[in-house]
Formats: sequence, C-alpha cells, structure tokens
Amino acid sequence: MFILDSKLANDSIFIGELALCKILLMNDSNYPWIIMVPSQNNLREITDLSFADQIILLKEINFIVDILKQEFAVDKFNIANLGNVVSQLHIHVIARKKDDKTFPKPVWGNAVAVPYSAEQIAEILQKLQKYFTNDRK
Amino acid sequence: MFILDSKLANDSIFIGELALCKILLMNDSNYPWIIMVPSQNNLREITDLSFADQIILLKEINFIVDILKQEFAVDKFNIANLGNVVSQLHIHVIARKKDDKTFPKPVWGNAVAVPYSAEQIAEILQKLQKYFTNDRK
Repeated sequence: MFILDSKLANDSIFIGELALCKILLMNDSNYPWIIMVPSQNNLREITDLSFADQIILLKEINFIVDILKQEFAVDKFNIANLGNVVSQLHIHVIARKKDDKTFPKPVWGNAVAVPYSAEQIAEILQKLQKYFTNDRK
Repeated sequence: MFILDSKLANDSIFIGELALCKILLMNDSNYPWIIMVPSQNNLREITDLSFADQIILLKEINFIVDILKQEFAVDKFNIANLGNVVSQLHIHVIARKKDDKTFPKPVWGNAVAVPYSAEQIAEILQKLQKYFTNDRK
C-alpha cells in the first residue's frame, strides 16, 4: 500500500487521483500550487520511475497544466522536483503571476504560506475536483 | 536559426548538443549545474513542445542525470523549469550534495555564484564533453 509522506499530507489538500499520481493542492493561497505524488513507495528521483511511468508522469503534468490554464490566470508555470526536505518523490506545478507575492523569485523560502479559509477550500475544490474521478471525496 | 538567450549564454559554458537540447554548464562552481535548452525558438513552457519532443526531452534529462551520477557525488537531483527571469525555455538539472553551500534550500537566490577558474573549466570539460559529439569544440 502506498504511504503518502506525512509532511506532504499535512501541508496540502487532496484533490484527486490519476493513473500514476495523487494530486494535492498546497495549502498556500499565495499561488495555485499543485503537488503531484506518484503512488509508488520508495521513489526519490524522477529517474527512479520506469521510463514508461515517466511518460505517464509527463502526460499527467500536461493534464495539470491544462487544468490550471483553464481555471486560473497564469503568466508562467514553475515545474520542479526538488525533494531536498521531503524525500518522497513529488513534483511541484505552480501557476505564477507576475504580480504574485514573490515573482520572479521561486516560491520556496521566499514567503510564509497563507492557508486557505474553509470557504476558499470549498471554492477551489469545486473548481478542481470536477477534472478527477475520486473515490475519496 | 536557433538563437540562445544572451543571459543564458553569458552565465554558462557550452558543453554539447543533443538531438533536442543544447547542454550548458552554469558557471557556478558551487554545484554541478546543467542547463538544458531545447533548440527551438519561441518556447517558454515545457508544454509548448510537442508531446513527441517532450519525450525526447525526458530521454535527454535521463541521459544528463546518468552523466552527473557517473562524474560527481550526488545526494539529490533538483530538476526544474522556472523561467521567471529568462523566458526562453530552459531546464535546470542540478546535482545537490547535503553539504553544498545552500542545501536543503533551492540554489536560486540563496548564494552568490562562484565562477570556475580556467583550470577548473578545462577539467570539467574533460569530464563532460566525452559524452557528446560536438562540432563546436
């Protein structure tokens, strides 16, 4: 059974499940910030995935980018695997705006996270969950 | 003809050419830090590439990761497309060590670049260029 890292779970809101990845929303209202977590244990690097699964990851990144383009105004996507703090493989897909809190700096370490209100969470789940078939709503 | 962004060119050392990407070494001796630049004009996002070219990019990222693993001690790869400052599509592949200057922070904005000496450049070119067939040596 796949075990999601507890820090990733604590810092995020579950959005949906794709063939390879769990899709989480970072609980930081500064940016539409998705975390994609391939549901396989003991992965640290993208290259730990088989090449076939890397292609699925790429497809799922394209799908997430399309959703964010549909639902938010986006000037630039920031797509990254760092994993220096949380070692479980996870990919950041962040919709940046030129007037967001830290642009053009990277999001990491440059602003304190501002959690969504319960109302904002309901609103963003309504925007995003329709793209997923969830058995965990 | 493909025109490399002048800031990318100024900040880096040309290493080699793959089917899709130019391979550059950031002129920052703090980290083995590769910049991959797909040689097509007017790209800003990974998703601006055709999906077939995205798969080639993925293959080339795997190739670069393998080279860095061969030639350097690496604790974690940081792989990212940000492009908030230089808009020409480029992908960072950075070999991080737990004792490097800024770990676990991201490399961007957290340390002043330390250019390689001429001797260090010669040494690193010898390490890296053997993996490429270059007509621009």
